[in-house]
Amino acid sequence: MAGTDATRSPDWSPDGPVTILVAPQMGENIGAAARAMWNFGLRRMRVVNPRDGWPNSRAIANASGAGGVLDEAQLYETTEAAVADLHRVYATTARPRGLTKQVLTPEAAMAEAHGLIAQGARVGFLYGPERSGLENADVVLAQAIVSVPVNPAFASLNLGQCVLLLSAEWRRQIDRTPPEQLHLPGAELALAEDVTRMLEHLEAELDAAGFFHLEHKRPTMVETLRNIFRRAPLTDRDVQTLRGVIRALANGPRRRG
Amino acid sequence: MAGTDATRSPDWSPDGPVTILVAPQMGENIGAAARAMWNFGLRRMRVVNPRDGWPNSRAIANASGAGGVLDEAQLYETTEAAVADLHRVYATTARPRGLTKQVLTPEAAMAEAHGLIAQGARVGFLYGPERSGLENADVVLAQAIVSVPVNPAFASLNLGQCVLLLSAEWRRQIDRTPPEQLHLPGAELALAEDVTRMLEHLEAELDAAGFFHLEHKRPTMVETLRNIFRRAPLTDRDVQTLRGVIRALANGPRRRG
Repeated sequence: MAGTDATRSPDWSPDGPVTILVAPQMGENIGAAARAMWNFGLRRMRVVNPRDGWPNSRAIANASGAGGVLDEAQLYETTEAAVADLHRVYATTARPRGLTKQVLTPEAAMAEAHGLIAQGARVGFLYGPERSGLENADVVLAQAIVSVPVNPAFASLNLGQCVLLLSAEWRRQIDRTPPEQLHLPGAELALAEDVTRMLEHLEAELDAAGFFHLEHKRPTMVETLRNIFRRAPLTDRDVQTLRGVIRALANGPRRRG
Repeated sequence: MAGTDATRSPDWSPDGPVTILVAPQMGENIGAAARAMWNFGLRRMRVVNPRDGWPNSRAIANASGAGGVLDEAQLYETTEAAVADLHRVYATTARPRGLTKQVLTPEAAMAEAHGLIAQGARVGFLYGPERSGLENADVVLAQAIVSVPVNPAFASLNLGQCVLLLSAEWRRQIDRTPPEQLHLPGAELALAEDVTRMLEHLEAELDAAGFFHLEHKRPTMVETLRNIFRRAPLTDRDVQTLRGVIRALANGPRRRG
C-alpha cells in the first residue's frame, strides 16, 4: 500500500500541527505514531514524560523509516511546558468528564487547524496515555476536544490508529492528488476516431455474420455496442487488440470450416 | 480514544462494502483489519486463501471486540470466487504494474461506492498480502484501483492501517455527528442577559476601582472586555463563578487592608 508519485504532490511540507504524546506507555505505540505522522507528512512530535524514558529503543525499532520524527522529537516534563509556545491546542479524547468544552470531529478540527496555521499560528494535538487517556488537567490546556466518531458498539482506537486518522485527515484536506487518474503505463488513450473505426469494423463483420437480422432492432443494437466500447477508457493498444479479436472471430477456423 | 454516543448516530448499519483480504499472511493483521472495519461500522469480511488456514487463532485473539466480524467472515479459495457475486470491485494497491486502470483516491472511491450501494449494488474492496500486495491477476478483477495518497518519502501503510483508513473514509462521508458540539455536562448555556449582567457588574467594579481613568478610552476598553466574555461559550455556572471572582477581587482582603 504505497502512494502517489512525488512529482504529483509537490506540496509536502514540514509545516503542520505538532503531535504531543502525553505520558505514552509503550515504545511500540510511540513508533507507530511516528510512522503515522510521517506517512502523511507531519514531522513535529513532542513527548511528555514517557513511561520508559527517552530515547526509547522500542519506539526507534518500531518507527522504521520514520525514525527522523523521533530524532527530532522534543521531550517535556509537563504537558503545560509542551504546549507553552503554541497558540491553539486540541485534546483528542472521547469523554471530557465534567468539563464544558467544544467537541469537534477530526474534519472540523483539521479545517480549523489549517486556517490557523495559514495565519501563522502554532497548533498542537494532545494524545493521552494508552490505558487511561488524557487527564482533565491536560484537557483544560486545550481550547477544544477532538473525538473520532467511531461505532458506539465498538469504540476502540489505539494511540497509533488515532494519530493515523488525524494525520490522514490533516493531509486529505490539502492533498492535490486528482480524485480520479488514468494509469497508462506505456500506452496512450485511443483517439475517438480510432474507436469509431473499430466500431465500424465490428458492425461490418456483424452485418456479414447476420447478427442484425432484425433490421428494426439494428439501430438500438448498434447504439448499445457503441456505448459499451465508449464507456471504458481504451488505449490505442486496446483498440488494436480488439480489432485483432474481431478479425479472429470473423475469419477464424470455425467459420472457415 | 472512543467516540460518540450511540444515541447521536442512529444510522450505523450493516450495509457497506465487503472487505476482501487476499492471501493474508499474519493472523494479527486479519484481526487488526476486523477491528478497523468494525470501528467504522463495516461488518462483511471475505478471506481468500489465508496463509495459516482458517479459522486463525491469532486473528481471533487480535480482533478483541470485533470477533463477530471474523465469525461471519466467508472463506474462499480464489479471488475470482470471492468477487463473483459483486457488482463492482476496487483493488487497493499502489502500483498497477503495466495495467491501464483508473486510480482513485479513497475519497473518490468511497463516494462512488456509496452511490452504487444506494442503487442496490454489491461492492467490494480487495487488499493484497502484506509483503507483496495484490497480483495483476487479482487487480484485473477490479474495475478500478484505490491508492491512498501518502508521503512519497515514506509510503508504508500496513494492511490494518489501509483497512482503517478506507473504512474511516467510508464512514466519514455518511457520518452525521455535528462537526462542532458543545459538551455541557450538568450545565446549561448562559443566557445573553446573564452575561450582560455579569459584564455590567464587572464594569461597575472597574469604574469604582478607577480602571477607566482615561474617559476617552473607556468605550474601547468596555468593548474589548465584552468581546472577550462573549467569545467563549459560557454556562450559567461559569457566569456565577465569574461573578464570584469579580466580587472577591473587588472586596478582597488586599483592598480592605
